Amino acid sequence: MRYLVSETPFTIWLTGLSGSGKTTLAKQLHKFFIDNGCAACVVDGDALRRGLCSDLTFSLEHRSENVRRAAEVASILNNAGVIAIVALISPLVLDRKSACNVITADSFAEIYMSASLDVCELRDVKGLYEKARRNEICDFTGVSSPYERPANPLVEIDTSVLSVSESVDIVISALRRNFNGVQ
Amino acid sequence: MRYLVSETPFTIWLTGLSGSGKTTLAKQLHKFFIDNGCAACVVDGDALRRGLCSDLTFSLEHRSENVRRAAEVASILNNAGVIAIVALISPLVLDRKSACNVITADSFAEIYMSASLDVCELRDVKGLYEKARRNEICDFTGVSSPYERPANPLVEIDTSVLSVSESVDIVISALRRNFNGVQ
Repeated sequence: MRYLVSETPFTIWLTGLSGSGKTTLAKQLHKFFIDNGCAACVVDGDALRRGLCSDLTFSLEHRSENVRRAAEVASILNNAGVIAIVALISPLVLDRKSACNVITADSFAEIYMSASLDVCELRDVKGLYEKARRNEICDFTGVSSPYERPANPLVEIDTSVLSVSESVDIVISALRRNFNGVQ
Repeated sequence: MRYLVSETPFTIWLTGLSGSGKTTLAKQLHKFFIDNGCAACVVDGDALRRGLCSDLTFSLEHRSENVRRAAEVASILNNAGVIAIVALISPLVLDRKSACNVITADSFAEIYMSASLDVCELRDVKGLYEKARRNEICDFTGVSSPYERPANPLVEIDTSVLSVSESVDIVISALRRNFNGVQ
């Protein structure tokens, strides 16, 4: 199967704590678009850290740079007609605002992955919270580094009460209401 | 018109001096692919410098980083099924080799824009050579910073003897011989 690029591409920006379900939802949203014949691309924080952002640390300054680069990549993908799905903790309001400016507000869908710190820490899929509590890693969002909630996201997804398919449905419905060209 | 992404996307990497015709050829190659219904994206050095690489200088270290980021972006575009057309001086063999490794050799088409320094300096479209000779800008490739020719490019394009449409024909013919899915 081959996919069409979009005349009105946009960026879905998933922000939230580690373990809040960003990558899982990003993959399922990607599957939704691909199944519908739309070119889409996941820009995942962990993948960026292995590639484009492999030179960056987790200091607040470098996190800002990480967010900036992710936004520039999303913008390039959008310019090529590809829907970008960014899955990135992106903890600071100011950095997400800058990202929105790079991508342009008309094309920027901020999704707040709102699972609580307790829930995310209980999951601890990658064992990172345990390490952060032991001070084996520093600057860990929610433990030793701040997370600022979005004031006005397009939607809020709490994966402690919603399944992945419910989450996809909610995001797609919100996109249909706010963006052109979502099937 | 809408465009199809490719199952076998690749990166066209145009390297050469400032004024050798990289951006002009990149735009015409982009037009060729779009006219043929294929999703394509120009990754232009000057545009990168205004966006993703706006934090970098023209030191050799930062030029390497510039090339690295361009390669990562091209790889992301390729992974999304989009043909990437990179127009970047990328003066050093080692940096282009690293870029090839990021993109993978099977998907990397190196095009050497071989117009001589004399020709490029005579054109001086952006007035940069004049500034470089006056030492008003430093680290300028060909004047105060090295350019290493590719030893074995896919093709060599000398825009002092070839027109833009002839150059496009030569590049597309070479791509057809070496890559799948070029119409």
